[in-house]
Amino acid sequence: MKFTVAQLNYHIGNFSGNKELICNAIKKAKAVGSDLIIFSELCIPGYPPLDLLDRIDFIEKCNQTVMEIARECTGIAAIVGSPTINTRPEGKKLHNSALLLSEGKIIFSANKALLPTYDIFDEYRYFEPEKEFSVFSFKGLRLAITICEDLWDEQPFDNEFEKTRLYTVSPMEELVKQNPDLIINIAASPFSYSKIEAKENIFISKAIKYKIPVISVNQTGANTELIFDGASVIINEKGKIYKQLPFFEEAVETYSFESIKSESITGNNIKSDSISLIYKALVTGLRDYFNKTGLKSSVIGLSGGIDSAICLCLAVKALGNENVRVLLMPSRYSSDHSVRDAVTLARILNVQYDIVNIEKPFRAFEEDLEPVFRGLNTDVTEENIQARIRAILLMAVSNKFGCIVLNTSNKSEAAVGYGTLYGDMAGGLSVIGDVYKTDVYRIAEYINMEKEIIPENIIRKLPSAELRPDQFDTDSLPDYKILDSILYQYIELQKPAGRIIKEGADGDTVLKVIRMIDFNEYKRYQAPPVLRISSKAFGVGRRMPLVARYLL
Amino acid sequence: MKFTVAQLNYHIGNFSGNKELICNAIKKAKAVGSDLIIFSELCIPGYPPLDLLDRIDFIEKCNQTVMEIARECTGIAAIVGSPTINTRPEGKKLHNSALLLSEGKIIFSANKALLPTYDIFDEYRYFEPEKEFSVFSFKGLRLAITICEDLWDEQPFDNEFEKTRLYTVSPMEELVKQNPDLIINIAASPFSYSKIEAKENIFISKAIKYKIPVISVNQTGANTELIFDGASVIINEKGKIYKQLPFFEEAVETYSFESIKSESITGNNIKSDSISLIYKALVTGLRDYFNKTGLKSSVIGLSGGIDSAICLCLAVKALGNENVRVLLMPSRYSSDHSVRDAVTLARILNVQYDIVNIEKPFRAFEEDLEPVFRGLNTDVTEENIQARIRAILLMAVSNKFGCIVLNTSNKSEAAVGYGTLYGDMAGGLSVIGDVYKTDVYRIAEYINMEKEIIPENIIRKLPSAELRPDQFDTDSLPDYKILDSILYQYIELQKPAGRIIKEGADGDTVLKVIRMIDFNEYKRYQAPPVLRISSKAFGVGRRMPLVARYLL
Repeated sequence: MKFTVAQLNYHIGNFSGNKELICNAIKKAKAVGSDLIIFSELCIPGYPPLDLLDRIDFIEKCNQTVMEIARECTGIAAIVGSPTINTRPEGKKLHNSALLLSEGKIIFSANKALLPTYDIFDEYRYFEPEKEFSVFSFKGLRLAITICEDLWDEQPFDNEFEKTRLYTVSPMEELVKQNPDLIINIAASPFSYSKIEAKENIFISKAIKYKIPVISVNQTGANTELIFDGASVIINEKGKIYKQLPFFEEAVETYSFESIKSESITGNNIKSDSISLIYKALVTGLRDYFNKTGLKSSVIGLSGGIDSAICLCLAVKALGNENVRVLLMPSRYSSDHSVRDAVTLARILNVQYDIVNIEKPFRAFEEDLEPVFRGLNTDVTEENIQARIRAILLMAVSNKFGCIVLNTSNKSEAAVGYGTLYGDMAGGLSVIGDVYKTDVYRIAEYINMEKEIIPENIIRKLPSAELRPDQFDTDSLPDYKILDSILYQYIELQKPAGRIIKEGADGDTVLKVIRMIDFNEYKRYQAPPVLRISSKAFGVGRRMPLVARYLL
Repeated sequence: MKFTVAQLNYHIGNFSGNKELICNAIKKAKAVGSDLIIFSELCIPGYPPLDLLDRIDFIEKCNQTVMEIARECTGIAAIVGSPTINTRPEGKKLHNSALLLSEGKIIFSANKALLPTYDIFDEYRYFEPEKEFSVFSFKGLRLAITICEDLWDEQPFDNEFEKTRLYTVSPMEELVKQNPDLIINIAASPFSYSKIEAKENIFISKAIKYKIPVISVNQTGANTELIFDGASVIINEKGKIYKQLPFFEEAVETYSFESIKSESITGNNIKSDSISLIYKALVTGLRDYFNKTGLKSSVIGLSGGIDSAICLCLAVKALGNENVRVLLMPSRYSSDHSVRDAVTLARILNVQYDIVNIEKPFRAFEEDLEPVFRGLNTDVTEENIQARIRAILLMAVSNKFGCIVLNTSNKSEAAVGYGTLYGDMAGGLSVIGDVYKTDVYRIAEYINMEKEIIPENIIRKLPSAELRPDQFDTDSLPDYKILDSILYQYIELQKPAGRIIKEGADGDTVLKVIRMIDFNEYKRYQAPPVLRISSKAFGVGRRMPLVARYLL
């Protein structure tokens, strides 16, 4: 039997676009005599459709699209992912289904049993879990068709408090009783730089445990904050990787089932270091946010610091230099090198830049507020006014020219609230809001690997917000190496403060940092969507009560 | 048997505060010889604790607080709600439990089986559903202890596409086999003006079906956007309301079980019209947001329009006039009556007001941007700059004086994106973001019922953003009566466009409005938390993909 893995980039709710992608892949597979083409989870509506699933018209459109694709399946079968209506009288209204299409019909369907409802996933919000399982015989092969988490009945969590066995059923334990020849897993599994091996190991361990090959088909591309890595993988019955598709690229590849079992494995799986994958993930996230919202161009506030510098490099890579413009917005507190370094970078990348000094509006605000603030000292208020003036200028360019403001705050700043709401926290999309400052430097090195693009001076200077004379980040924050280590343990690993301290961090610093994180939930509530590259990003995957008083 | 209903206002994560509330109620109940005091769902951590539940230290603190309260239960028993650890090897790490405490011990526990995971609820994110059920004999009475949704196995949804039977199990059908004498339901059920009767009917129908009394204990007060109505209710075995506790107030009341069964019912349940309840809900939401964040004072931009006028009235009611100040920020486009009307209202309510004209900063921005915008026409860009200058001024006062900016946008505007991101959409809390414009007028009438507080001129003038000469809302939007009707059908009832049109609305208007709603998801993504009074508010209960392309 010949089968085709279709690793594609779907767009939520864009039924005609998704159908075209799928039908083109079917044509391609037919041309090489494939028997079965496998698409990824919920490929029909795109993933995650979120509350669009609450609309009956949306579900009807899914059904209609499935039937249109079924009619293209002549001489070939296809597995597609789509929501289907739960026909039982009780339970959630939908199932998350894998549908086997052939000759105009749905000849088999399997519903997802394990519904991830943690972090960024909300699947039990919409879907009824399946409790019955069957393999399906296709061209003499008994297929165990599973959907993503269905194979993740045992999984490692970063938070040790979570159980490894998160579910009380195991679909494969049921399916294996029916002697399958092959496990197929269709997925919509977003990228996380710390989960690459864990994901592979899930499939490897199942192949070894059941002594049958596993074909895992993931999607690629990004939908808002979620970036899907692709990296679909075929594993033989001994747990060796037979083929792996590329990261962050579409691919339609055909193999024969027999060769998985017979060919010796050459070990061609892709090992990339995490920074190069993070870089590709961010470029993918940026590119697709623009592609899928239908907008072309962006504007960035370029400060002369490292954060906006790498955001600019990423944006130029994703959108092209002709679709990125920058504003330099010096103030009375800006150092000479800020403007000089920013101009140098803008010229190297050949992007349009405008210099707008914020002194005039700043003075206008000072004058306007003088009667209200009379007799009071200058404080963080005046620093925030400067940051907010810059946001007004960026948004004015955005409004006038129809381009999206890219937010350039990093995860370390976002964590401790070292940023101004409606100021430097503004933007349509946060490019590096899931990248700690220490990793920002690693990305800069990666960008400069072959030749110096980001001027060395931008990388070497001490981080500063330049909102008052001689201000440096370290005035308010611990050294970023120390800070990021605490942040990672508290945010990603969800370790209690006591344990972070017991394991070696300075007690006062840990408490200070955690209080800053907790205190600033209200700011992050209003932050733009953040391109997610870690196992715990700010945004939809991390839900904290604003009025909590849980002090350490 | 004497039992006490404790309808209290808990604060998320404030263990010492919650414990004090609970212990004071226990003392009060003991003083009147009560046998059993009943608190509400998850009263120990406060509801909803969200991802604080992912922290082992948070759960340990819950356990510790439960045991401290158990030691206060001498000569009385107490039912409290708390998360407990799932001791089985698989499944979610926690249960949502009702714990019966007596003489220093937990003598019985019941875990929640039906875990709401829709709208604002995410309970399956944290909790393993219970599958086994037992009644507990206490002082000769067999108690069926249930937690909130456990009784909601059949419920009406506004969206007809949702199933009435959302779950595949029914805890009461299991419990009734063990012949209970009494159903106890502990809840954390947020207010929604359209659900008041539906809630009562749930309890009434269970009492009638099983021919046993129901005691439902809800919490009151607000945590961020969720406002809990209290309105705990005791229903006799015939389905008549024996007692109902007040809306939006704490209450600790003791009754005898025998009297529920013997006393004839006088029908004293509280019937309030929805506007007076919405008014009380918003005041509660405002008051508690400040109480629970520990902040005292607020600042509002007062435009002379009706939205900011009712927000000011609500804030003065909730916080006291000494804790509310207003900024009047006229521009070259402001009409004379705007400032005059705003000053009149500020004086009537006796709040501090400052007038800051935005002309100077506006001109500074125009000058700064002149080289960038050369040759281009004036458009919405310049309107947005004005709105954003006002946000900078409000945030400056917020920063300087430590007060929270209250956002005054209504739900109709938020729906169609008739507002400026980082401008009039800014603020720490949205007061009327879940109130349609037509209901804003009804609230104004309610406020003016006894005497004129809001000047008649504010209520009567045509709505205008005053961002360009002679601008009125109706230039861009349909009449609010028509608009709000479409919004309600699309947002709350989740009706497809086709059906809204079929049922009588104008086709072009419906399509235009729905496109505006869908297009503006990106703005609402960054909006402040919205006090929730409806069955579908913007914010956490409505999750839409930003990059969706699902056109009608």
